[in-house]
Amino acid sequence: MRPDSAGAAPTYDPTIWKLKTFFDAVPGFSDGPDTPRAYLERCLEEIASREDEVMAFAHLNAEGARAQADAATGRYRAGNPLSPVDGLPIGIKDLIETRDMPTEFGSELFAGHQPIRDAAVVAGLRAGGAVLVGKTVTVTFGGGDPAKTRNPHDTARTPGGSSSGTAAVVGGAMLPAALGTHARGSTIRPASFCGAFALKPTYGAINRQGVFSAADSMDHLGTFAGSLSDMWIIARHMAKTAGGDPGHPGLYGGLRPPAPAKPERLIRLDTAGWAQTDDPSKQAFEDFIGQLAGDGVEIFTREDDPTIAAYEDELARMPALWMHLYRFEMRWPLLQYRGHDRTKIPPRLLRGLDEGEGLTQEQYRAALVKREYVRGLHQELASRADGFVTLSSPGTAPVGMDQGSAIFNESSSVLGVPAISLPLLAVDGMPLGIQLQGAVHGDERLTACGRWITESGLDDGG
Amino acid sequence: MRPDSAGAAPTYDPTIWKLKTFFDAVPGFSDGPDTPRAYLERCLEEIASREDEVMAFAHLNAEGARAQADAATGRYRAGNPLSPVDGLPIGIKDLIETRDMPTEFGSELFAGHQPIRDAAVVAGLRAGGAVLVGKTVTVTFGGGDPAKTRNPHDTARTPGGSSSGTAAVVGGAMLPAALGTHARGSTIRPASFCGAFALKPTYGAINRQGVFSAADSMDHLGTFAGSLSDMWIIARHMAKTAGGDPGHPGLYGGLRPPAPAKPERLIRLDTAGWAQTDDPSKQAFEDFIGQLAGDGVEIFTREDDPTIAAYEDELARMPALWMHLYRFEMRWPLLQYRGHDRTKIPPRLLRGLDEGEGLTQEQYRAALVKREYVRGLHQELASRADGFVTLSSPGTAPVGMDQGSAIFNESSSVLGVPAISLPLLAVDGMPLGIQLQGAVHGDERLTACGRWITESGLDDGG
Repeated sequence: MRPDSAGAAPTYDPTIWKLKTFFDAVPGFSDGPDTPRAYLERCLEEIASREDEVMAFAHLNAEGARAQADAATGRYRAGNPLSPVDGLPIGIKDLIETRDMPTEFGSELFAGHQPIRDAAVVAGLRAGGAVLVGKTVTVTFGGGDPAKTRNPHDTARTPGGSSSGTAAVVGGAMLPAALGTHARGSTIRPASFCGAFALKPTYGAINRQGVFSAADSMDHLGTFAGSLSDMWIIARHMAKTAGGDPGHPGLYGGLRPPAPAKPERLIRLDTAGWAQTDDPSKQAFEDFIGQLAGDGVEIFTREDDPTIAAYEDELARMPALWMHLYRFEMRWPLLQYRGHDRTKIPPRLLRGLDEGEGLTQEQYRAALVKREYVRGLHQELASRADGFVTLSSPGTAPVGMDQGSAIFNESSSVLGVPAISLPLLAVDGMPLGIQLQGAVHGDERLTACGRWITESGLDDGG
Repeated sequence: MRPDSAGAAPTYDPTIWKLKTFFDAVPGFSDGPDTPRAYLERCLEEIASREDEVMAFAHLNAEGARAQADAATGRYRAGNPLSPVDGLPIGIKDLIETRDMPTEFGSELFAGHQPIRDAAVVAGLRAGGAVLVGKTVTVTFGGGDPAKTRNPHDTARTPGGSSSGTAAVVGGAMLPAALGTHARGSTIRPASFCGAFALKPTYGAINRQGVFSAADSMDHLGTFAGSLSDMWIIARHMAKTAGGDPGHPGLYGGLRPPAPAKPERLIRLDTAGWAQTDDPSKQAFEDFIGQLAGDGVEIFTREDDPTIAAYEDELARMPALWMHLYRFEMRWPLLQYRGHDRTKIPPRLLRGLDEGEGLTQEQYRAALVKREYVRGLHQELASRADGFVTLSSPGTAPVGMDQGSAIFNESSSVLGVPAISLPLLAVDGMPLGIQLQGAVHGDERLTACGRWITESGLDDGG
């Protein structure tokens, strides 16, 4: 089933819409009639049929991908795949350097820019035999101004950003996986809007070297995929080959996806996004929470624990804290690029730069102290439950090209705690993500709980 | 007095040799006959007379510097200098990006490479009116293979590295200041060999964005200058304008140099370098320690405190720990550059890359755990004294172009604790640095103690 084109009412239904998954196809590469090349051709066919209206790619390397897929095909036939990701067609957000495709950071300043190196995670994927299909569209420098990409479920709407093309190709079932980044809401938000599974890992858990970052202390490498199992295998492969960020211990957990694990208790977080959430989305979330409770998951709220109330009060102030940190950290290199050619900096980014220019190290230091306080609250709560549950965005993708609100996403960016988005809800025919957040370094446990929620939920018809 | 040329015996004497200082000249720019342009011309004259044999510059921008100095001259005349560093002629290590000078990282792979941006600290210096005289020679990618630069006090000897040109221009009194980096010994070692004052700050205290780093969790921005006062003003100006690394609180302390402060107690650290140290250098150090004790500074050793013994035992294993961390972290981007053109990677770096390729995230994680343990020991000891005192290198600059040993430098790189080098000793006519190390974020206190030691020592004729 293909989504309708612009003009028709969207018809997304998570129980019907099939994302592309990869690892369930792998046995067929060795023993069956399928091949990585044939898998890739199915992807390219879907891309060809959608790209004109979705505009997800900054650069499509179909011929290069075919050569890579043919090599993978040969390795499977010979019984020697390089790694679990051998033959995996994957899209790479254009904030991430690639040595065989231009890397333009969504900016005219870098038109045609060709690095001589791969980002660390791209090198790890390439070494494992992954098929690098193309560069997916990013908002310019990951900032606030929208990119050209459209939502694959309704091209009159935004896919969200800044990982716009990444979310569109995975949510639109053009590719089984793609890489994004996340310094505010750039992974969880577009995953919600486009209906993809996605992981924003613990800060530092997946190497970001060779990835543009405008806010280094809040940026993360995001993995988008068609299932949580696929997502985990890819994320873990990258962490194995590229490591975490220097100085960080990297992603903890096994190379295989964790088995589904029922959460005993989840903390429900409403503020600060709840006030912005429209009624149908609120109702869909309430129904979902009711279903979880009905399945025997204990749902804790601020009424149950004063620490939750204290934490939610801090979440209400999180947008201001996020903005403070971002405005300070974005100054390099963006002030340099503004100095090089002011006309090439989009308006919102330019306004942010102008406003951030006067911030002092002392003000930034105060924001860091505040962050440590909120981290303490989060850590305390994380020890009392299996995770936190909330929406991934305060509603479905808005009509128009504005990226939409990141109000549900700023806390995990500021705090560096892991978050995943599950495309389990539909509101008015558009996807809406359920967000789980977990303890620092609890990415694997979070994925296990996400699997239980996703797979038991689907079994129950929810 | 100019040092002798190659062949003649070196004659360095810290009581006679005058490094260039800048801030004592500034009053003359407003009220006296001196100008930033005239100051610069004195530097350029010295550079012209030494550069052929010392080879400290990867790129000299004399005309650009003259224009910048003229602008500064105008600002002082008008009574409106931009900042304390207005008019300061400074050299920039060629691992640090500059938008108006090539940045080649000491590598043929980047021959003629011209960034469109300044590193954050360069932007801060430029905004403050500093005069960017040129790019100083670095060892290729800051690695182990020597660069072309010679020691200004004896051109038959190495200046040390990897901040080779930086140390040579400051120690050789060609410039009052220059920037280096330090991931192993690249600031403290060449400062010792060339006779410069230098600060390797607390990890993260001075912004490294736009600075090449092969070992991100151990790399630091180093400030070389002709006096501790100058060093502090420049470092603090950079931290004020560029901040610390994202997520770090930045350099603590006032904008003006701290007043000299007599340390009540210093912990003397001998191992692991002591065994490599030659007898004349040992004797010079013993004499120096004796003088400190004579001045009423309490000197603690492993005989006085079992925690010092435990820490020194860890220092003995520090070279292995450093190597482990470095080998893992250097893989990106250096494996990428090796893949691009293996013939352009110097032999030692190539060997390191080959050896590091098989390290796993689990091995790296174990090294990080070990580092945390040793940090705990250091923190415990730092609370019991004003600092640590040792040599900056296990002897003077070796004859030949090998960079010399970093055995006294690895611990502060691994641990991220601040270190300064004081050019107070002479052995056989060559400089040898005294190294002070302090508590994390204790950079200012360390500088204050360094001033007391330097200034009281000189008063006493030592």
